[in-house]
Amino acid sequence: MFESAEIGHAIDKDTYDAEVPALREALLEVQYELQQQKRFPVIVLINGIEGAGKGETVKLLNEWMDPRLIEVRTFDQQTDEELARPPAWRYWRQLPAKGRMGIFFGNWYSQMLQGRVHGQIKDARLDQAIAGAERLEKMLCDEGALIFKFWFHLSKKQMKARLKSLADDPLHSWRISPLDWQQSETYDKFVHFGERVLRRTSRDYAPWHVIEGVDSNYRGLTVGKLLLEGMQNALKLPKGKASGMNPAPLIASVDKKSLLDSLDLTQRLEKDDYEEQLITEQARFSGLMRDKRMRKHALVTVFEGNDAAGKGGAIRRVAAALDPRQYHIVPIAAPSEDERAQPYLWRFWQKIPARGMFTVFDRSWYGRVLVERIEGFCTPTDWMRAYGEINDFEEQLRDAGVIVVKFWLAIDKATQLERFQAREEIPFKRFKITEDDWRNRDKWDDYRAAVGDMVDRTSTEIAPWTLVEANDKRWARVKVLRTINQALEEAFEKSDKHDKKVKKGKKK
Amino acid sequence: MFESAEIGHAIDKDTYDAEVPALREALLEVQYELQQQKRFPVIVLINGIEGAGKGETVKLLNEWMDPRLIEVRTFDQQTDEELARPPAWRYWRQLPAKGRMGIFFGNWYSQMLQGRVHGQIKDARLDQAIAGAERLEKMLCDEGALIFKFWFHLSKKQMKARLKSLADDPLHSWRISPLDWQQSETYDKFVHFGERVLRRTSRDYAPWHVIEGVDSNYRGLTVGKLLLEGMQNALKLPKGKASGMNPAPLIASVDKKSLLDSLDLTQRLEKDDYEEQLITEQARFSGLMRDKRMRKHALVTVFEGNDAAGKGGAIRRVAAALDPRQYHIVPIAAPSEDERAQPYLWRFWQKIPARGMFTVFDRSWYGRVLVERIEGFCTPTDWMRAYGEINDFEEQLRDAGVIVVKFWLAIDKATQLERFQAREEIPFKRFKITEDDWRNRDKWDDYRAAVGDMVDRTSTEIAPWTLVEANDKRWARVKVLRTINQALEEAFEKSDKHDKKVKKGKKK
Repeated sequence: MFESAEIGHAIDKDTYDAEVPALREALLEVQYELQQQKRFPVIVLINGIEGAGKGETVKLLNEWMDPRLIEVRTFDQQTDEELARPPAWRYWRQLPAKGRMGIFFGNWYSQMLQGRVHGQIKDARLDQAIAGAERLEKMLCDEGALIFKFWFHLSKKQMKARLKSLADDPLHSWRISPLDWQQSETYDKFVHFGERVLRRTSRDYAPWHVIEGVDSNYRGLTVGKLLLEGMQNALKLPKGKASGMNPAPLIASVDKKSLLDSLDLTQRLEKDDYEEQLITEQARFSGLMRDKRMRKHALVTVFEGNDAAGKGGAIRRVAAALDPRQYHIVPIAAPSEDERAQPYLWRFWQKIPARGMFTVFDRSWYGRVLVERIEGFCTPTDWMRAYGEINDFEEQLRDAGVIVVKFWLAIDKATQLERFQAREEIPFKRFKITEDDWRNRDKWDDYRAAVGDMVDRTSTEIAPWTLVEANDKRWARVKVLRTINQALEEAFEKSDKHDKKVKKGKKK
Repeated sequence: MFESAEIGHAIDKDTYDAEVPALREALLEVQYELQQQKRFPVIVLINGIEGAGKGETVKLLNEWMDPRLIEVRTFDQQTDEELARPPAWRYWRQLPAKGRMGIFFGNWYSQMLQGRVHGQIKDARLDQAIAGAERLEKMLCDEGALIFKFWFHLSKKQMKARLKSLADDPLHSWRISPLDWQQSETYDKFVHFGERVLRRTSRDYAPWHVIEGVDSNYRGLTVGKLLLEGMQNALKLPKGKASGMNPAPLIASVDKKSLLDSLDLTQRLEKDDYEEQLITEQARFSGLMRDKRMRKHALVTVFEGNDAAGKGGAIRRVAAALDPRQYHIVPIAAPSEDERAQPYLWRFWQKIPARGMFTVFDRSWYGRVLVERIEGFCTPTDWMRAYGEINDFEEQLRDAGVIVVKFWLAIDKATQLERFQAREEIPFKRFKITEDDWRNRDKWDDYRAAVGDMVDRTSTEIAPWTLVEANDKRWARVKVLRTINQALEEAFEKSDKHDKKVKKGKKK
């Protein structure tokens, strides 16, 4: 969920200086339009990692836009008046009116996260707070509000560097943050519970946007553009339809950089190394699947990737390690008539393995946010809500002991062309290449953006994505097997720890 | 929430026999229309009290409709296959396809209620289960499903009689229910937690319908008509709009009987009794408001009622007992421009009293589901979701120690006419009667239905409605004060118990 916000997004000064004037003008224009129409209020929630530029960005927005139409609210210590009333009162009294923008620092999310990180509440209470936030935001949206939720992120390393530089700077040292942020344990907890909160509360009507906070140009432009497009879209909606319509869009990365760029596609394995490693990993896999701890788990692997990236070959190498009675390969194509008569997750639920078993999905439920999004087979509202629905689905699998391992097999455009041409030339491979494949290739950039959004919104601690460098098929196959093995081992270790706890009677 | 389902609803045989043929024909017609259009699946959830006719009603539906298009599913003990997979799998594999109806017994609600009643889970876990159910149903509705949720209810007395008659009947004694239902403690818990579940999960896209289960004619006709109107409405929606549109309507009570009928409007107080009782209750109120335990609480009273029912007079008698610095009377009229620029609950949030204080709302947030509903000032979706939003709001008040006491002052139509005429004749009262009052009077029956729905959906353990017989003003005023005093005493007793628990270190 935070992977894309740790890759060093940056915008150079020239680009920034060139883009800002038009953006400012457009923001002011949309702000006045909103003020005149008075159709809805805009609520901006600011959350995230200490030192990630939350305050600076809000300051910037106030410079860029007309500050008379913006109310910046900080919710820190409760006042006496607030303490004498229900907790939500402080938010209600500060809500911006229709036509205005309210920027909320230290909002309901900060409160629940602080409470959980410092152990004042446990998971069940956190979930109650999350459900309360969902209800509040749903109601606000149903009443017409346009909500933006920004999470400013830094990697742990970035955060430490940032806090140090602030402390060293005499002009900023007064801003030194609470001591606990100096501890990496606090960071880890904050990110861990932050992910849980974002996963649960990123809904189509009020999605989260995770923003890398290292480079001030990048984060300023990104926030500015998201606000601009979201407000423009909402103002375009027919009257009385300002709500529940997902007017806050996903925009392309403003520096054109994506997680996929961080892959080193030149990685490869020599034949000898490959054969040795493949056999080693297959044997390890076979052993793990026969481990008695597997009886408490099931395994689901998801294979997505560019056309001709080698999904089929990788799946065969995985399957080769096992007794065919233990696994089931489910190829996913366009849904059948029966499947179209059901909710889109239905056909995948039907194939969930029983404990001890293994299902390979060759393409998967992610079709909703890939091909269906790109081809327009469903509405933007549909695929926007799908991210949350998929996270819910995978959380249910995880809670039941299912280990979910997800692969995106990535190749570059040139490699794809080579493989397409080879397929057309080899008679027994010709069935593998169709008109559709060429059409998809024309939409390379759309897929690239959709994959980025998919990973940003569904790569979670409970079911992370693994991006596989697949220009070299050998490298890809070994990486796939090794990743599955690591996931199984980790799950087994967790079970062991859990069992020990239970034995000691320490189970919560 | 269950009050209206304990008043002895019944339909006599002649009426029933006269109505059923047309209903059956219409149900079959809508069923075939649905089958042909294949636009959405219908999911019917059956829950409620043991012996309230759940099974019989489903049997009846199968007789009335074409059973080939209905799938009745019971979710009792989990099978081996189900136990080996995530809990929701059993529901997913049984979902009806578009064009079909699935009737779910023993669904997700039964599971969470059983767990909570028998103490296997606590409140926080129940809330997690509730949030899970909300997510599932929201997703199903977003995917087009039409969901009906029926809660079959019996009062405790009715249930005991019913269980006894079943046990005595040799043809039915095999159906004798689990032992625990014989215990009144189980009933109490089931109703207590059932209310929590209904309150939280009755949402505009999938509202609950509480149905009194004593009379088989009544419950059959009610369920049949709800299904019929809901399906007809949904089929009328433009294509692709089957969801999130509240197509399941609230229908008028099929036996025309409402909770308001159960009031004995002839109740009255003689002048001497009145003066004595009024002074006693005022003194008691004054004392309670000065009690030091009041520092942990605040008091909110809501006055709604027919025009000329005597709200103003009752409020004056309440206020007369107090120092004016301790209370604040908030008259609610049409919203101002500033108020219209905010969510509809906003103006009430602004007036929430601090601890130790008291706010009287002369009309209230219930305007949304009364005048706004009847005059069409908001859409049906808006006022349908308002019930849930109001329950959330009042729960937040209660959680913060606010005691919420809600009155509906009821008079009959003749009394209203007398008072209107009197007001027109007395010069200093003439300002109290307007064109609007006469217009509202023409909508007497609409208000009656709206009041019924309001009480059914918002009278909760945390903030119950009190219906006040107000033909006699003296009776009404004393009842109002006495009810407030009882509510304060109950709240203080609960605080005392809680404090003792905390002292003993037993606090959960």
